[in-house]
Amino acid sequence: MTPQTRIVQVRQQLLKRNDLAARALRRRFEHAGVLVISLVSSPGAGKTKWLEEMLARLGQTQRVAAVVGDLATDNDAQRLARSGAPVRQITTGAVCHLEAEMVEQAIANWTLEELDVLFIENVGNLVCPASYDLGERIRIVLFSVTEGEDKPLKYPTIFNTADLCVITKIDLADAVGFDRAAAYRSIHSVSPQMEIFELSAKTGKGMDEMTEWMTSQRAAAATAAPELTATHP
Amino acid sequence: MTPQTRIVQVRQQLLKRNDLAARALRRRFEHAGVLVISLVSSPGAGKTKWLEEMLARLGQTQRVAAVVGDLATDNDAQRLARSGAPVRQITTGAVCHLEAEMVEQAIANWTLEELDVLFIENVGNLVCPASYDLGERIRIVLFSVTEGEDKPLKYPTIFNTADLCVITKIDLADAVGFDRAAAYRSIHSVSPQMEIFELSAKTGKGMDEMTEWMTSQRAAAATAAPELTATHP
Repeated sequence: MTPQTRIVQVRQQLLKRNDLAARALRRRFEHAGVLVISLVSSPGAGKTKWLEEMLARLGQTQRVAAVVGDLATDNDAQRLARSGAPVRQITTGAVCHLEAEMVEQAIANWTLEELDVLFIENVGNLVCPASYDLGERIRIVLFSVTEGEDKPLKYPTIFNTADLCVITKIDLADAVGFDRAAAYRSIHSVSPQMEIFELSAKTGKGMDEMTEWMTSQRAAAATAAPELTATHP
Repeated sequence: MTPQTRIVQVRQQLLKRNDLAARALRRRFEHAGVLVISLVSSPGAGKTKWLEEMLARLGQTQRVAAVVGDLATDNDAQRLARSGAPVRQITTGAVCHLEAEMVEQAIANWTLEELDVLFIENVGNLVCPASYDLGERIRIVLFSVTEGEDKPLKYPTIFNTADLCVITKIDLADAVGFDRAAAYRSIHSVSPQMEIFELSAKTGKGMDEMTEWMTSQRAAAATAAPELTATHP
């Protein structure tokens, strides 16, 4: 057996283990009535800026919290904590993605019933996070206008496993000659039904619509688990 | 033994195997007198655009070629082939980085002695490619002004293992409020001696200096292997 064959086998075991942990997490999230949303993107696509804005906006009507993953530094957690929301940093070291057990440990001291929406910001990486279920209900892939319209074609798995695509830094669209039609074609060729939002967390453009979408998703999640709406009216 | 422990062990075996393959490649490259330069960056930092320009500019005085890695599509190879230089695409599927054996296979039909400079463009990923030696002499990390000045702190290994940092899309510096001093501090805090170039492949700013640097590196590599200068005067 070559090392390559062996690593594939061991990786499958690890993914299976992660799937089991993610399934347990998902049950806990649903039971507690918390809507869990994960964010994936390449480094610097604007996950943290988006999250910073979302914690401030959505936080006005919902009890929000965030878990953020990075290889090194707790800069993001410090930055997001300014919103007043509970925030935990996961520092992965050399690991290129979050795993369900890391999330489980990060939220160990939280009472999930006290939350409405929990965001999980993955490590900036368009490849590896695609394979790891974190127990989230919704996965959002962020994709900035500066990255090139072909990225969904080059990283199809992560776009295919996402539920929503958010095109970020739309304020830079003209400066970079962003080809909207080409970007949409790329996204829909790997995920034909993908809903797309365009926004700029910097100028605020599109953020109201994004916040409304979040609020409606939270309401839909609560309806999907009717036994919970009684305890969280 | 947990799957995690096992995957670490298997990964170490795989890295060891890769190191052996990379060492053999490096010997071949040195023996053939070809300067090999690899490119790493996050998705959309501008590796292909940089390479497109470099093949055209450096190609005027040197015999250049390129190997490009992507999960999917051969768009980059098609784009780069327009320069007239020999180009090979490696499509990795779900694999998040290039490995030495993939490079070895990609160049199998080339006569290395007929090349002066060979570029290897890795998969867009700031994490995993850091661990895989490809037998290159120089590793360049590209980092665009749109990604945020803190990225070297968040992805220290890849910046630490690079020999040169190229800050790309400098034409967008004002539009994104790029903080040059903060970016340099981040880079130098993980790699104190790192040489830095700033450029825009789009406007051409800094590309002459970059081309000169490449030419001088090629000359230095030829001097470092004096037995080769006789056959490649």
